[in-house]
Amino acid sequence: MDENQKKTALRMIPYGLYVLTAQAKDGATTAATVNWVTQASFAPPLVVVAVKADSNAYAVIRASGSFALNFLGKGQQSVAFNFFKSVEREGETIGGERYRVGTTGAPILEATPAFVECRVIQTVDHGDHSVVVGEVVEAGVAQEPEGRPDDAVLWLKDLGARTFYGG
Amino acid sequence: MDENQKKTALRMIPYGLYVLTAQAKDGATTAATVNWVTQASFAPPLVVVAVKADSNAYAVIRASGSFALNFLGKGQQSVAFNFFKSVEREGETIGGERYRVGTTGAPILEATPAFVECRVIQTVDHGDHSVVVGEVVEAGVAQEPEGRPDDAVLWLKDLGARTFYGG
Repeated sequence: MDENQKKTALRMIPYGLYVLTAQAKDGATTAATVNWVTQASFAPPLVVVAVKADSNAYAVIRASGSFALNFLGKGQQSVAFNFFKSVEREGETIGGERYRVGTTGAPILEATPAFVECRVIQTVDHGDHSVVVGEVVEAGVAQEPEGRPDDAVLWLKDLGARTFYGG
Repeated sequence: MDENQKKTALRMIPYGLYVLTAQAKDGATTAATVNWVTQASFAPPLVVVAVKADSNAYAVIRASGSFALNFLGKGQQSVAFNFFKSVEREGETIGGERYRVGTTGAPILEATPAFVECRVIQTVDHGDHSVVVGEVVEAGVAQEPEGRPDDAVLWLKDLGARTFYGG
């Protein structure tokens, strides 16, 4: 296999950007920018997110059994960069962002246009990132998008001509 | 959970379009357009694709233990629509497209700009679509994109203002 062709092909997959959050039963929290996300079923509504296996984010998700995906909106590049390194809660903010506590305990960022909260159904631990399959149990949209919903979110390519990211 | 907000939130996830192909050991083939795809690890290189659980495509993938994702390029809307209903091989074409046989046996469409071939690592069968985790074992790019690779592929939103699709 040609490693360069593999890299280019995989970079052809388009992505949005999300802040993955979770809170474990002991109160530990996490918030980290992710892009490896897809829906995976309508009924029940499933999503898949790949999470760095040795990260604090994955440890908190495992301990919690749940997580939230906070969808970043157009123009929220600085929020995406803020959470490239995962952070924990500090008082009423996390990574400088105000949040409320969701039904799963996960921080729901107030500034983002939409979120889904999920219960973990299964994980597949095979690579440097683990595959987390979650069932959507709560969802919210701050404002119904006027055009296509997928035009309202921040895309990976909005971060710049040479910015790639995985996880 | 508000069903409309859930639907809108999930439609905010941006997607590319791919023709999923596979060939079982008995020679049965499949080709079907999919969009629920994400990379899921760098090492080993993993991708996840969600496939309709009761589909011929999923049956062939299960029987084969492998599959290919043929990346659709900008302007290949008609190819995407061609494979919305899964089709089998007819002589030297599949769905009217010329192909060659990949290292996994999966049809590799000649007209598409890139492909990856994968061995199935694990499946998660929990919803109307199954989560297929595959390790990339072969990849090819017909021509190195000049700009961002994710600008070179056909996006779901390129199919029209009101076209949504899942699977």
